[in-house]
Amino acid sequence: MAESRRNPRWQARRQAIVDTSARLFARRGYHATGIAELCEANGLGKGALYHYIGSKEELLAAIHDRVMDEVMAGADRVAQAGGSPSAQLVMHGEELLDVIHRYPDHVWVFLHEFPALTGERAAQFRQRRRAYEERIEAVLRSGVASGEFRDLDPWLTARAWLGMHNYTYLWLHPGGRLTARDVAKPFGELFLRGIERWSSRHGAE
Amino acid sequence: MAESRRNPRWQARRQAIVDTSARLFARRGYHATGIAELCEANGLGKGALYHYIGSKEELLAAIHDRVMDEVMAGADRVAQAGGSPSAQLVMHGEELLDVIHRYPDHVWVFLHEFPALTGERAAQFRQRRRAYEERIEAVLRSGVASGEFRDLDPWLTARAWLGMHNYTYLWLHPGGRLTARDVAKPFGELFLRGIERWSSRHGAE
Repeated sequence: MAESRRNPRWQARRQAIVDTSARLFARRGYHATGIAELCEANGLGKGALYHYIGSKEELLAAIHDRVMDEVMAGADRVAQAGGSPSAQLVMHGEELLDVIHRYPDHVWVFLHEFPALTGERAAQFRQRRRAYEERIEAVLRSGVASGEFRDLDPWLTARAWLGMHNYTYLWLHPGGRLTARDVAKPFGELFLRGIERWSSRHGAE
Repeated sequence: MAESRRNPRWQARRQAIVDTSARLFARRGYHATGIAELCEANGLGKGALYHYIGSKEELLAAIHDRVMDEVMAGADRVAQAGGSPSAQLVMHGEELLDVIHRYPDHVWVFLHEFPALTGERAAQFRQRRRAYEERIEAVLRSGVASGEFRDLDPWLTARAWLGMHNYTYLWLHPGGRLTARDVAKPFGELFLRGIERWSSRHGAE
């Protein structure tokens, strides 16, 4: 097993199983989906499935990790791009909505089934989710410090931002009427207007 | 059964079962919670439980109805109070957060387990949820029409508002650091600033 985990083909096959299973969990729910259905959807016997995923909960954790990997990669790109807190917040929105748009099943499972993670896996998930939330809080804090944003509660304001963006998972889908960018732009504008110091805009519309 | 449904004591007992079961579903998930656990938590035998709830899915629908009843009662109060679109939107926020704060278990089940509703019950749930969303869209549309809000997409802006407010279910709890009002005020302010025509405020801060 330790050997096979280093094998790129094994890794690719495992990732495909994670993706297929995310679709299944998103449609039927984690608890309602049995190992037999996972085997059938993935075209594998029980032994082979366990060889790749270890356990059903490990599969669930892998779906959560997939989302967090993408979300943190986006947050890292924003940090590397630099720019003002306003610009960073808009970029964070674009990146987050892009993940939600590209991984509707994974994100659905992520937002609905996280309570099914237990022990170490639950702790790790909370830690990763918290690390992302802290990126958003940090942008807000730096905008307050620079005087770009008004004097707001970074924790609470981050919750408003996260809710507004995360909740798009209910209707932002590949092939839908709106792309991630169609949503990121007006959401970013609404949010920035909501938190900017008024004096940072010159005059009325 | 038709007789007993008109009995206030029967109704009160049924409501207590709905509330207790919401707590159980919120903690363990709908699918993972068996009839045996529902019986034990409610101190009832299987026959008595079914006498009150009909079926497990009917119980789930009753939890959803409980949330929608409260949410629509709040929306009706806002409509009756009248006032400008800005004032109405803030009141809607206060009312919605109040429901989320008072019914954390019901709301958890509502937001996580709605895909488990099937057929007629799923259709009814979607219809009720849609009716509420339309109230928010209508306020936004009237604010655009009156020139109080800038020229925005009422559907998309309602989604931003709903996400921001609904998502508080993850951390807004009875006995927590923040009350519904503590959150409604800054959220309302942020959102209004985000959608108002700038000319409707006089000068800078």
